[in-house]
Amino acid sequence: MLNSKAAKTGRRRGVTGTREAILRAARDSFARKGYDGSSFRGVASKAKVDPALVVHFFGTKAELFGASLELPFELSELEAVLQGDRKTLGRRLAAFYLRRVFHDRAQTVQSLLRSCVTNPEAAAILRRTIETTALALFQRVFPAPETALRAELVASHMMGLFLARHILGIEPLASTSEERLIELVGPALQHYLSPQRRR
Amino acid sequence: MLNSKAAKTGRRRGVTGTREAILRAARDSFARKGYDGSSFRGVASKAKVDPALVVHFFGTKAELFGASLELPFELSELEAVLQGDRKTLGRRLAAFYLRRVFHDRAQTVQSLLRSCVTNPEAAAILRRTIETTALALFQRVFPAPETALRAELVASHMMGLFLARHILGIEPLASTSEERLIELVGPALQHYLSPQRRR
Repeated sequence: MLNSKAAKTGRRRGVTGTREAILRAARDSFARKGYDGSSFRGVASKAKVDPALVVHFFGTKAELFGASLELPFELSELEAVLQGDRKTLGRRLAAFYLRRVFHDRAQTVQSLLRSCVTNPEAAAILRRTIETTALALFQRVFPAPETALRAELVASHMMGLFLARHILGIEPLASTSEERLIELVGPALQHYLSPQRRR
Repeated sequence: MLNSKAAKTGRRRGVTGTREAILRAARDSFARKGYDGSSFRGVASKAKVDPALVVHFFGTKAELFGASLELPFELSELEAVLQGDRKTLGRRLAAFYLRRVFHDRAQTVQSLLRSCVTNPEAAAILRRTIETTALALFQRVFPAPETALRAELVASHMMGLFLARHILGIEPLASTSEERLIELVGPALQHYLSPQRRR
């Protein structure tokens, strides 16, 4: 099944270029077809490389998924939001999700949701990624016993909001302005992220 | 492709019994395989009827999905929750979702999420069902301009909570007690469902 033309193309791009081309093709495939519908062969074809190269670089589909997984925002962007005035944090986070994440990175969010709802292995990889990135950041900025739990409640609300507004498309939520939603959602997020009182 | 033994079984059960057997098989198939992975043939085989009977009763896969679709709670249960003291509504709704819906009807919730995330046709059917049942109930009990929007924000949070706790399984959310989650989530839902001030 070796395809010498594709393999040559791979070599011409160099190792880094080929690896990046495979990751781009993998992201596209996971977004459009989900985890179960994606294969080494399909990704290789899209990236114009030999399937054996994909196996060589990534070993298993789970590893390919993990390597291609992107959060729908840069951690530095989230950190900038978290480091502003604590009193308006809920509103700023709501705006960050609605204006930046849902608006600019909708395809990435949809891909993550689809993969984790349809495949437990993909869900486990996404879980570990969130734990070691966004959650770790929340805990560093707000060190307190329940920070992780409260950040997860915020994230859970935002995942559900994306699902209801962009995937289910339920009205009037789907056509309500970002501004009005920020007014409504901001205080709910603020509730979770206000400084924790002793229980 | 007629299977006379299966067709006879269908007749022996009577029309209502056969229809119910098909719907049970369809629910099971949509839950385990999702919308795209389910077929008339698979449902017919599981229900021990001829595929032609499934077509005869339901016409299209979309109609079969719509007919087999169950909300993960009875409307009368939700109505009982909504009709209690308005001041503790958020907490009662959080308890209803966490103790009743997520606990007793997890398979139904997971099936609905999986179908609507993977197939736009299934999402449209679920959207119409929610609009004509749970949302209509909220609007009847709390007639106000933004009731539907606010009920959808509540539902979106609860969908996301199920996703994060039961599908993603992220910690510490997944292992936090229902009691502690009701304490934390209740006020967020209460925020959405408090009597609406004029804007």
